[in-house]
This record gives sequence, C-alpha cells and structure tokens, in this order.
Amino acid sequence: MEAYKIIIIGGGAGGGTSAQFARKTNRRADVTVFEKGLYPQYSKCGLPYTISGVIPSVDHLIEFNEEWFKKEKINLLLDTTVERINIDEHVVIAKRNKDEVEASFNRLILATGAEPFIPPIKNIMGKDGVINGAYTLRTIDDAKGIINTMKKSRSATIIGAGLIGLETAEALVKKGLKVCIVEALPRILANTVDEDISSVIAEEVNKHLRVYTNHIATEVNKEDDTIKHVVIKNKETNEEQVIPTDILIIAAGCKPEVSLAKQIGCRLGETGGIMVNERSETTVDGVYAVGDCTEYKDLITGAPILIGLGSIVVRQGIAAGVNAAGGSYTLPAGVLYTRTSRFFDLEVAAVGPTASTLERYNVSFVNGRFKGSSLPDYYPGGEPVIIKVGADEESGRLLYAQGVGCNAAQRINVYASAILKGMSVHEMKRLETAYAPPVAPTLDPLTLASDVCSMKLKRKR
Amino acid sequence: MEAYKIIIIGGGAGGGTSAQFARKTNRRADVTVFEKGLYPQYSKCGLPYTISGVIPSVDHLIEFNEEWFKKEKINLLLDTTVERINIDEHVVIAKRNKDEVEASFNRLILATGAEPFIPPIKNIMGKDGVINGAYTLRTIDDAKGIINTMKKSRSATIIGAGLIGLETAEALVKKGLKVCIVEALPRILANTVDEDISSVIAEEVNKHLRVYTNHIATEVNKEDDTIKHVVIKNKETNEEQVIPTDILIIAAGCKPEVSLAKQIGCRLGETGGIMVNERSETTVDGVYAVGDCTEYKDLITGAPILIGLGSIVVRQGIAAGVNAAGGSYTLPAGVLYTRTSRFFDLEVAAVGPTASTLERYNVSFVNGRFKGSSLPDYYPGGEPVIIKVGADEESGRLLYAQGVGCNAAQRINVYASAILKGMSVHEMKRLETAYAPPVAPTLDPLTLASDVCSMKLKRKR
Repeated sequence: MEAYKIIIIGGGAGGGTSAQFARKTNRRADVTVFEKGLYPQYSKCGLPYTISGVIPSVDHLIEFNEEWFKKEKINLLLDTTVERINIDEHVVIAKRNKDEVEASFNRLILATGAEPFIPPIKNIMGKDGVINGAYTLRTIDDAKGIINTMKKSRSATIIGAGLIGLETAEALVKKGLKVCIVEALPRILANTVDEDISSVIAEEVNKHLRVYTNHIATEVNKEDDTIKHVVIKNKETNEEQVIPTDILIIAAGCKPEVSLAKQIGCRLGETGGIMVNERSETTVDGVYAVGDCTEYKDLITGAPILIGLGSIVVRQGIAAGVNAAGGSYTLPAGVLYTRTSRFFDLEVAAVGPTASTLERYNVSFVNGRFKGSSLPDYYPGGEPVIIKVGADEESGRLLYAQGVGCNAAQRINVYASAILKGMSVHEMKRLETAYAPPVAPTLDPLTLASDVCSMKLKRKR
Repeated sequence: MEAYKIIIIGGGAGGGTSAQFARKTNRRADVTVFEKGLYPQYSKCGLPYTISGVIPSVDHLIEFNEEWFKKEKINLLLDTTVERINIDEHVVIAKRNKDEVEASFNRLILATGAEPFIPPIKNIMGKDGVINGAYTLRTIDDAKGIINTMKKSRSATIIGAGLIGLETAEALVKKGLKVCIVEALPRILANTVDEDISSVIAEEVNKHLRVYTNHIATEVNKEDDTIKHVVIKNKETNEEQVIPTDILIIAAGCKPEVSLAKQIGCRLGETGGIMVNERSETTVDGVYAVGDCTEYKDLITGAPILIGLGSIVVRQGIAAGVNAAGGSYTLPAGVLYTRTSRFFDLEVAAVGPTASTLERYNVSFVNGRFKGSSLPDYYPGGEPVIIKVGADEESGRLLYAQGVGCNAAQRINVYASAILKGMSVHEMKRLETAYAPPVAPTLDPLTLASDVCSMKLKRKR
C-alpha cells in the first residue's frame, strides 16, 4: 500500500478542514500543514464580532488549537511561509523564522486563500503595507489592530458595503463610533441580493450610520503617519468631500492568492482562481486546491465563480482531505452560493445568482415576492419576513431565492435544497411546510412567494 | 359555457379555502357553503391558544368573516345542516332552524371534517353528548365551554398525549390549573415523532404536569351531573387510581365524518376516510372532498393516511376549489405530513412517517441523529437543536426527518423539500446551507444529522 504523504499549504478553514478529513479518512497518512500566520485554524467570519465584543476575545475564534493537531498527529507548522514548490521532485521549500524547511509529499493541497484588494487610494500605502489607522479584516492580527486603534477612535470609515463591510460597520457602531461606509456601486450588498431586498436592509442600516453609495475614496490625509481624513468622490457629480476619520477599514473584496499554484502549472480560470473539479483536484496530478484561492462552477449559470464563503470552503476541504488520503468524496456539480448574515437584528439570506447576474448571462426569468408574517395573523408576536424567488421563464425551474427577516436563513435553505434537485416553482408552491400557530402560518411566506412567481409564469404562457 | 354551480358542505379550513379558490378561479361561478356551526371559517388549530389567553378571544380565530364572504359573492349559510344529497338530481337538502333548504349543484365539495373519538369511559356520556365538565376541542363552542368551566376549576385531566392534547395541557398549565395527561400508549407524541425525540419533549413537559403513559381512563364519577373524578387504569398492572378533576378534555383522535359521502356512493378507503386523488376528486363524478374527512396516499409508504393537518387541508382546498371551478390544480402524488408544534418553548417538527410506521410497512432504513447548537460554538447565544433523519437502506433516499429545538420547523422544511424531490441522504449532507456566525454554523445540525446517517449507510455496504 502506498504511503500517503500529504502537504497542505495554508491552515485556514480550507486547509484545516482538509487536514482533519485526511486524518479521518486515513489514520496512517503523514499530514503536514504549513501556515504562514501565527494561529492555528480559526474562524475568519467571526472576526467582526470580536470587534463588537459579542465574542469577547479573538482566542475564542480558534476552532482547533495546537493541542488538537498534536493529538490528531497532524504536523502543524505555524509562522512558516512556503517559498516554492519543486513539483517534479515533490518537495516543498518553506521559510520558518530564518530557517529553510524542506518536506516531500505525494499529495499536495493548496489552501492559500486570498489577499484583500486595496483600491488605488492616494497615500494609503505606508512602508509596511497600509498606513497606520488603516486596516483590512482577514486575520486575527487585523482584528487585534482594529480593536486596539478603536479604543482611541471616535470615527470610522469603511470602504465597501458588502457582507464584511456591513458586519464590521455594525461592530464599530456598537462600540460607539461614528461610522460611515463608502460604496462604489449604487447600493449596498449589490453582489449579495437584489435591489428591493437590499433596500430593506439599507433602511435599517441608515438608522445607525451613513452610507455613501456611488462614491469612491480617492485619498487619505495623514498626520504623524496616522490617518486623519479620507477624501471621497461622488462618481456621478465628481463632487469631493473630506471626512475626518480615525480608522479606515478596507472591505473591498479579495483576489485569490495563486502564486504557488501558477508556479507549479495549475490552470487558473477566467476569474483568476485555481480551477478545481468536484473532487477538489486541480489540473496538476496529485494537487488539490480548496477555498478562496479557487474558482468553481455556479450551478445555475454554469459560469466559474470565485469561492468566498466559509460554508463552501469547508465542504471543499472535506472533499480534498478525503480524496487526498485515499477516500472518495464528490461535491455537487456546482455551487449554490447559499449565504446569510444579520445586520442590526435583521437576518438576510440568499441562494443562487442575483437578478443582475442572471441578466448578465441572458437567462430569462420571472420573479415572485411575498411580504408576510412569520406566524398566522391571529397569533401574537409574528415578525415580518420577505421572500423573493426567481424561476426560469421556460421551464419554471427555481433559479434563486432571497429573504430578509424572521428565520430568513432556514427559509432560504429550503430553497437551496429545492434548487439543488431542480425543483420547479410550481412544485415549490405545493410543498407541505410545517404549520402550527406558534411556529409558522399554514401557507408560509416561502410558499406564497413561489405562488406569486408561479402565477406570473402562467400568465406569461 | 357551462354555468358552474358549486356547493360546498362544511365551512372549515377545507371548505372555506375551496370556496375562496373556486371564486379566485371563476368570477362567475355560483358558490354556496353550507356550515352546520355558527361561525364562518376559523382556525381550529388556534383553539388551544384561546384557552391559554395567548390569543385573547375566540373571535380572533375567524379568518374570513361573513362580510368577506358577502364581498366575494359566496353564499355562506351558517347554522345549516345538510341532511341528504340527491346525487341523481344534483340537489342538496339541508335544515336551517326549522326550515328545509334545497339547492342544486353541478359540482359538489365535501368538507365535512371529522368527529372527535370518545373512548369507552363509563359515565362519560350525558343526555346531550359528554357530561358537564367534559369536553372535546374541535370547535369554538368547545373552547368557549372550556374557558368558562376553567374559571371555576383547579384541576384538569387530558385524555391523549398527541399534539392537541399537549397543546391543551400547556394552555391549562399556563392558566394555573393542576394538569395531568392520560395516554394509552407507552409515550407521548407516539404518532408524531420517534421515541428518542419524544423523550426530549417529555423531559420538558414533565416539569409542568404529570403524564400517565400506558394508562387508560375507565370511568368518570360525577356529582350533580358534573364531573368530580376520573378513574385511570395502568394497562400493564391493571392498578387503578382515582384522580380528582374539575375538567376533562378528550383529545384521543378523530374519525372522519363520511355519512353524506357514503350516502352518495363515494368510495371510502381502508382508513375510513373518503378516497380522493391528486385533484381532490372522489370516485363520484363531479364530487370533490377535502380535509379531515378524506384519506390520501403517504408519499413514502404509499399507504393511505387520514388527513388531520391544517396545512394539508388548505392545500386540498386549493385543489378542489380550483378544479371544481374549471381550473386545473394537481397536488403532489402523496403527502409528506410535515408537522410542527411548540411545547413550553420547545419547538418540535417532523416530516414523513415515524420509524415505527416504516417498520410496520417493512421498510429497511438507517437513522442518523445529531445534537448540536443553532450557532457556531464560539458565538454566544446558540440554542440546542436535535435533528434526526432516516434514509432507505438500499437507495439512501431520505424517508423522514424529525427535529426538536431552535428553528426545528424550518430545518424540517428543508428536509420536506428534499424528500419531495427524492433526494438521498448523501446529497443532503453535501447541501450548502446558509452560514454566518450570528445565524447558523458552517455545518448545520441538519447537515450533520445527514452526515451521521450517510456514514452508517456506507459502513453497512
């Protein structure tokens, strides 16, 4: 029997999960994780909540500590940066402090993640990355820096009104800072949900902070090497404004970290991510890739999409770990991109492409939308919930669903399950959902949204 | 064009919904509803919550009032009991006060509901049904009687530990009564969930009231024609106990009310309910039936099952109303029996047959069960949730799911959607569920229950 020597580059959710499942699959495999940071596997998605203090310390985010890796006989090398891979010799060369470390493998898993995208803002870069008072938020060290700076700050500016930008903005509002968000697109959460859904969230968000949509940051002013102002520009009128800010957080998206993948000849896709298949294999034999450094097919559009969701990363990690260790694990043929968050107690969730993505791919579809209550009208305490669905104009097949309000995430999971199995909106409106007065209405908002969509489709015929 | 003359017998959820959708489908149809009771369409499922006072008055339960029927030009005849149907002449003969009413139809919808089953308890029957202080709970008048009697009561006994028995017991506990439940089977909710799930609920219920499982009520003692004691007997030991009780509620199930259906030759199934197809048609041409008087096929076992859930009743009502009025509406080929309730803040939900039902039909299956938190471990405020699934031993197809705890109902809806489309447990464990720290974990309990089940299946191969 072949001896499995598995090297995993990157100890985040993707790499860590790969290691864990390689071990579960094969008790005798040799498993090594190289991680350039100082921390074992932790939850990146939890970082905003360490800023708000909901999670009392960044230490809580560590999901598997060094003890755990030791117990599982997985070699975890922290503070170790892989510099190059000799793919012919199957050797990884890394730097640890000033020492060079060499290790050989017969299976390699790339879990190199992504790097924050820094927009071209004048003066933003100092000699060691971004200047003092400016941060990205991808690592525990980023969060520590923000928490520290926040204590002496009164105002904060966030660049980017995506999920992470909004989560971070809320955290800073909760800490008493005056917060504004600068967003280049005309609305918040433009890549997450449709306009009508994002406007419901915007209404809530606007109660707590100022959002400058259609604006870009052009310049920062500093004093003693510390940020003082950010200059923002209206993209339509070109009008400029100077906003005093003690802290600036850049949440403008990421680019996949693929330099090692490129070096060993893994094919990159049109998004710039490493191409992987449903077994998390790259185009190079024996080399797997998982997480934010990869792209995968969107189940609905068929187009490649960059992976940027912890839920998908973990599932890829399971596949890569099992397969690299001699087991067999196949992912669905595409991603649903099921996603959620909560802003000022408003839960939002979605699955599948947004309307504008579908339009970009020339998919003809019809929408249905329903705003109702989480409970029957006669039962007190119901909370508002809006569900929106989109279905293919020809076949009626469900393409996407979005929700905001009470239990939006689990309601969207119902759609995720349906979309994965190719259910039509006409079937969905007939689905028996759980009903009891203190729990849910006889016809759930998720049923009624499908009913509206199904009716519209029938009228079109 | 044929003139539609639709008569609906029964104005509950099934009949009312039929009328509503007949009208939606056909603005010119003649629609008449005969209802023997005094109230227009109301929610039977809401009745226990009028006893607890959560719903302040029974009037709140009326979902469509007489005004609404008038506005929709639906003839609603309350306090009108249909005595016979002349099916050859297409005429219904009813009694209203002392008058005889005759009406002709070319489409008939039977929505005659069910009657509570009264167990053979000595002295239970008085001259007008059950004796004073004893009640069933199917109508507004029942609830009014209970509310009235409750005011001068200190103790209550419930016969039957199904959903309605437990909901009513909780209501009476909330009103300060000393409550006990007498259940003939060895456990509570035996027809709703498996033993391990019901035991979680039992643990909570037992904090608030006494449950006598394996017991039957054999006799009631009365004084001045009012109940004083109930005698219960242990089915194993035959030991008897006398329990003082001011109020006795019988929640021991129902039998379908099918006398009119029989009279006109509608075929009844083996459960005693009226056989209907996926268009809610009976075996008699032009005659539909909906709700608790019908039986329909269980999607998993293929066996007929009595309909006793509001959610299914309403869906059948939609089908019957649309089809009777010249439209077309087809229900899924079988029922999933998706069900839920909440007891002392513990949400419980299930879809598909229970394990014991599957065993009765000789289905070979494997279970998976997971107890976890509604949120990631590192995020505060997570609540416990248990999910259990069953999958076919051969094919891995999902057969049922049950849950108790946080958002059990919507999690079970995810399974309902999957089961309707024949998803396997191996696919379910790969389903991308919505993840964000304040909303749900990366691998939801619903995913992990499927994972456990999938693993077990694989080990069996």
